[in-house]
Amino acid sequence: MEELLYWAGMAAVAVNAITGVLVAQHKQMDLVGATTVATATAIGGGTLRDVLLQREVFWVADQAYLAIAIVVGIVTFFWARQRRIAEARFLYPDAVGLALFSVLGAQMALQWQAPWLVASIMGVITGVFGGVLRDLFCNQVPLIFLPGELYASVAWIGALTLIGLQEVGVDDTTSTWVAMAVILAVRAAAIRFRIRLPTFKSP
Amino acid sequence: MEELLYWAGMAAVAVNAITGVLVAQHKQMDLVGATTVATATAIGGGTLRDVLLQREVFWVADQAYLAIAIVVGIVTFFWARQRRIAEARFLYPDAVGLALFSVLGAQMALQWQAPWLVASIMGVITGVFGGVLRDLFCNQVPLIFLPGELYASVAWIGALTLIGLQEVGVDDTTSTWVAMAVILAVRAAAIRFRIRLPTFKSP
Amino acid sequence: MEELLYWAGMAAVAVNAITGVLVAQHKQMDLVGATTVATATAIGGGTLRDVLLQREVFWVADQAYLAIAIVVGIVTFFWARQRRIAEARFLYPDAVGLALFSVLGAQMALQWQAPWLVASIMGVITGVFGGVLRDLFCNQVPLIFLPGELYASVAWIGALTLIGLQEVGVDDTTSTWVAMAVILAVRAAAIRFRIRLPTFKSP
Repeated sequence: MEELLYWAGMAAVAVNAITGVLVAQHKQMDLVGATTVATATAIGGGTLRDVLLQREVFWVADQAYLAIAIVVGIVTFFWARQRRIAEARFLYPDAVGLALFSVLGAQMALQWQAPWLVASIMGVITGVFGGVLRDLFCNQVPLIFLPGELYASVAWIGALTLIGLQEVGVDDTTSTWVAMAVILAVRAAAIRFRIRLPTFKSP
Repeated sequence: MEELLYWAGMAAVAVNAITGVLVAQHKQMDLVGATTVATATAIGGGTLRDVLLQREVFWVADQAYLAIAIVVGIVTFFWARQRRIAEARFLYPDAVGLALFSVLGAQMALQWQAPWLVASIMGVITGVFGGVLRDLFCNQVPLIFLPGELYASVAWIGALTLIGLQEVGVDDTTSTWVAMAVILAVRAAAIRFRIRLPTFKSP
Repeated sequence: MEELLYWAGMAAVAVNAITGVLVAQHKQMDLVGATTVATATAIGGGTLRDVLLQREVFWVADQAYLAIAIVVGIVTFFWARQRRIAEARFLYPDAVGLALFSVLGAQMALQWQAPWLVASIMGVITGVFGGVLRDLFCNQVPLIFLPGELYASVAWIGALTLIGLQEVGVDDTTSTWVAMAVILAVRAAAIRFRIRLPTFKSP
């Protein structure tokens, strides 16, 4: 279980790095820019969580995460120069990454004795802040703040599910899987049925 | 006194959250965007101060701040969708928040044994960085960096007043009230008489 | 040696503060804006390094850095209002600052027991993140992410040189000087011969 989650985490880092490059591409960045944006997208969320909780930053402790992000960033850069990569191909892998990051982030915060609301927000930060950083570096309003299919809110629902289940006595493993499944299911439904939150532009 | 400042701090968090939503509104954000910007505006300054001083982040220790910011953000979002909220109504409440955040931020840094210049800058950061974060998330040059009525400079004057008074032996309570009064008075005068700093655009 | 590096570090902070003001100028900022951008440019890289490594932030420990950055920012602001300052004059002083910051940043991370890849990236962050922050505050895509003469990559080469030399047993002083010389030489060559990295815009 531990090991499975470790490798899944690495895969999620890689998927995030790829989506970072695909956004950087629209800004005509060079190799350094694309790789930096890729790395920030991949490890930015977990970094902010660790800094806010004052835990050792996860990629300082285990540099494999940093290495994966950089290598995937560089490879994707040259791949994307060769031929157009359809961003839509990464919608579902990205949803898996969101589920993993958010649930593990909330879990980590709980083990660190964070109060429940803080823990749920740490889950959201772990899941989505990498994308916010990517958009800041690309000089655009973070996509997740704009009208679009449920994303950050799904991360929050998942994190709250985890915390609620553990509160009523469900064990760590079961609650982790259920919370991830909730995120995947709601996110997939949101993409499929174009479920959105209210926005300022009234209809 | 302690309790009064605590509740005043909560009120300042709420006012900042409101102003965050009012800016987010111009970017046609959705509920998640508006609430995130509101929360970042409300607790961003104190968060940066705590991270730089390596203190436990204040809203991780007491999640009431986080809860207030989120709830006020959500309520203001639906309120602002119903009818236009005049931003000018929040100029003076915001000045009270600035006074409170800056003076308490500097105080906290002093108690943490920060040297005087650092403590004064921590006061400024606590008072204004939330607004900077709000503007970064909204993809605009931070308002306080552009020509306008004195704002960050007022926070600095107030923080320096606090530090100077304590240096010459004035007690904590008196110096806190005087420093806050200085900020309120100078900020009100700046709004009233349109007092500005020199800018690059020469007249 | 220690003292020489200390004063060279102060000089590098000053040079970075100047370049911060020169960029802020294009955004018609006021005195607070220009000074904040100057300070963020000057001390932003080292600050992020210290936060990520959970060391005491260098300018909280020694406020001389903060004082230099603020004073140079203010002086440069008034100087730049009087007459146009050619940015090109700071290309080589900036390269010296890059060499110093990157090598010392990596050195510090190594002494903090960071693994090698992390240490090299800390060197890059120390050298270039101030400029990234400057550009974020000025609401533009960070210059170092866009096509241009080698910059961040040079910092990385220098940091890796330092780490490689120490790995094979070269002493601290020698490896520091060699790594700085490598950065200066490669950066100068990049400026002179317009050496660039591949970008997304294929030729």
